[in-house]
Amino acid sequence: MQQTHSHPISLKTSDWINGPSTTTLSDFEGHVLLIEVFQMLCPGCVAHGIPQAMKAHALFNKAGLIVLGLHSVFEHHDVQGKKEALLAFADEYKIQFPIAIDRNAGKTRIPETMSDLQLQGTPTVLLLDRAGRLRHKFFGRVDDMELGAAIMKLLAEPPSGGQQEGCDGDTCRVS
Amino acid sequence: MQQTHSHPISLKTSDWINGPSTTTLSDFEGHVLLIEVFQMLCPGCVAHGIPQAMKAHALFNKAGLIVLGLHSVFEHHDVQGKKEALLAFADEYKIQFPIAIDRNAGKTRIPETMSDLQLQGTPTVLLLDRAGRLRHKFFGRVDDMELGAAIMKLLAEPPSGGQQEGCDGDTCRVS
Amino acid sequence: MQQTHSHPISLKTSDWINGPSTTTLSDFEGHVLLIEVFQMLCPGCVAHGIPQAMKAHALFNKAGLIVLGLHSVFEHHDVQGKKEALLAFADEYKIQFPIAIDRNAGKTRIPETMSDLQLQGTPTVLLLDRAGRLRHKFFGRVDDMELGAAIMKLLAEPPSGGQQEGCDGDTCRVS
Amino acid sequence: MQQTHSHPISLKTSDWINGPSTTTLSDFEGHVLLIEVFQMLCPGCVAHGIPQAMKAHALFNKAGLIVLGLHSVFEHHDVQGKKEALLAFADEYKIQFPIAIDRNAGKTRIPETMSDLQLQGTPTVLLLDRAGRLRHKFFGRVDDMELGAAIMKLLAEPPSGGQQEGCDGDTCRVS
Repeated sequence: MQQTHSHPISLKTSDWINGPSTTTLSDFEGHVLLIEVFQMLCPGCVAHGIPQAMKAHALFNKAGLIVLGLHSVFEHHDVQGKKEALLAFADEYKIQFPIAIDRNAGKTRIPETMSDLQLQGTPTVLLLDRAGRLRHKFFGRVDDMELGAAIMKLLAEPPSGGQQEGCDGDTCRVS
Repeated sequence: MQQTHSHPISLKTSDWINGPSTTTLSDFEGHVLLIEVFQMLCPGCVAHGIPQAMKAHALFNKAGLIVLGLHSVFEHHDVQGKKEALLAFADEYKIQFPIAIDRNAGKTRIPETMSDLQLQGTPTVLLLDRAGRLRHKFFGRVDDMELGAAIMKLLAEPPSGGQQEGCDGDTCRVS
Repeated sequence: MQQTHSHPISLKTSDWINGPSTTTLSDFEGHVLLIEVFQMLCPGCVAHGIPQAMKAHALFNKAGLIVLGLHSVFEHHDVQGKKEALLAFADEYKIQFPIAIDRNAGKTRIPETMSDLQLQGTPTVLLLDRAGRLRHKFFGRVDDMELGAAIMKLLAEPPSGGQQEGCDGDTCRVS
Repeated sequence: MQQTHSHPISLKTSDWINGPSTTTLSDFEGHVLLIEVFQMLCPGCVAHGIPQAMKAHALFNKAGLIVLGLHSVFEHHDVQGKKEALLAFADEYKIQFPIAIDRNAGKTRIPETMSDLQLQGTPTVLLLDRAGRLRHKFFGRVDDMELGAAIMKLLAEPPSGGQQEGCDGDTCRVS
């Protein structure tokens, strides 16, 4: 599913693991980002989403892709919601990329980033271009070949931001 | 791996979910038992062991197989060791068979049943015959075809206990 | 799908590869037989049926299972119907078990054994007990766990023929 | 494996199926080409290569990718080498993209295009850019994610030919 946002997005996080707790998406400026949105007890996340994100990291990290996790808990908060639980999960699954914890002030079941970005659930793969704009949202199981192509399409765009600057066959735009 | 024990085995449990907390293996006397030994954060358990146990339940329950889980935590006790965590896991994975919690008095990392039965880790599949004797221990990923055959071999044994009573080509035994 | 035939079946063959051209099922008397019915250009046969038959051979040959192929061509006879084509196929796929060529006198599209046994198409797995009786017919993709159990059920039957002789809980039969 | 050829390549063909017998690669000028090099009795081709090529066609045809087959027979010429055999294969596997038959004057086992391009065997995936240059050669099983990215990298290049014209960060080239 193609989703173009015209402005850079940000995450609302309460903490990070495998990285400084003050991390923000702007720290990765200029890179293409793949954000794996998951819950540690979500079967589809564990069976497909996490291994796929790890494979994307292995294949495209050298080409400029940064892979991040976003732990967006909307079920069983008491068990999944604690940082120690996520640390144990990341240790067992040998996940080395940074994982943000989606902020939840406790007023609703749905955490804030998940709500802001209108995500349908987990697993969801988000792809952001070098300018920090959300360009793809894949909910559920996405095919490896399709995801590989979507990643490369963003990696192949010029650093200045692709679609919005310069000329294509029809038009020339200012950024 | 074939493992024959000459006497019925028992589990040392601190609790059960999906069944009464006082459950013992003798409650299932006369049935063939498949016990899936797992940890909720063990990748191989979640990817292969649990789905395989659920498939065995679906295929052979009517033929007399009882499928049970045994949660034998030997890593990250603080996260995996609580009953609420296991309840959340069973809910997310839609596991309906009874799961025993392997007892751990806290003196060692390894819980008691895992130690008694000299298990090598998780996932492990245990198969018990109708007399309650441990007949197979499979550590790691076991092939579906091989497991189906091992289950059926025990289901096909006469209720009186198979190998130890009656006559085969060479000998006649008393039980 | 369970199919019990009360008498031993036979194959109508025009030739065999990986074995003498005079082979008949009675040569395997006393063994449980798995017969993989296939066509060399049938996608499901090549993707699932043949590899599954090879796995069954590897797992259960020592326990008394004999695996055979039956090449039942009902499409593209000019290409699939020649013995040299089947030999090339068996060489490329490294199939070492004997394969019968289902006889076709040329009057109809459907070869004779396929017609006699009322098979629905390819791939089909046939299981015969030690007395040569057809006990199971699986059309299409059959699950490994289910097939392993069906094979073992027949292997566990006494050589005299299982269901039709001796006593079970209700009755005692003469053969 | 990255392979850059500086000039457009051509195929040496004796015939085509699913297209005119006079087809040449120049007929697809301006498109990115994926050429699946296979033999109809090669197990890896049938299990992985052909389904992967069909998936690539389904995903990227609208974006400008043309998928072709190249039947490069180097074993069992008597069985695989005839056009009728290939037609039967394409019918059974429901392959609709054009397939070239690699020319073999009969002097050697290896057909001419396979020899010219120094291919290691089958399956091999060739990727050609819009200018007809061979840019990737993947021998054996290639991961879907990696292939999807390689396809998109070429699709994202400007029609004028990518690497050899215009400026990148370091240099400006004439074509």
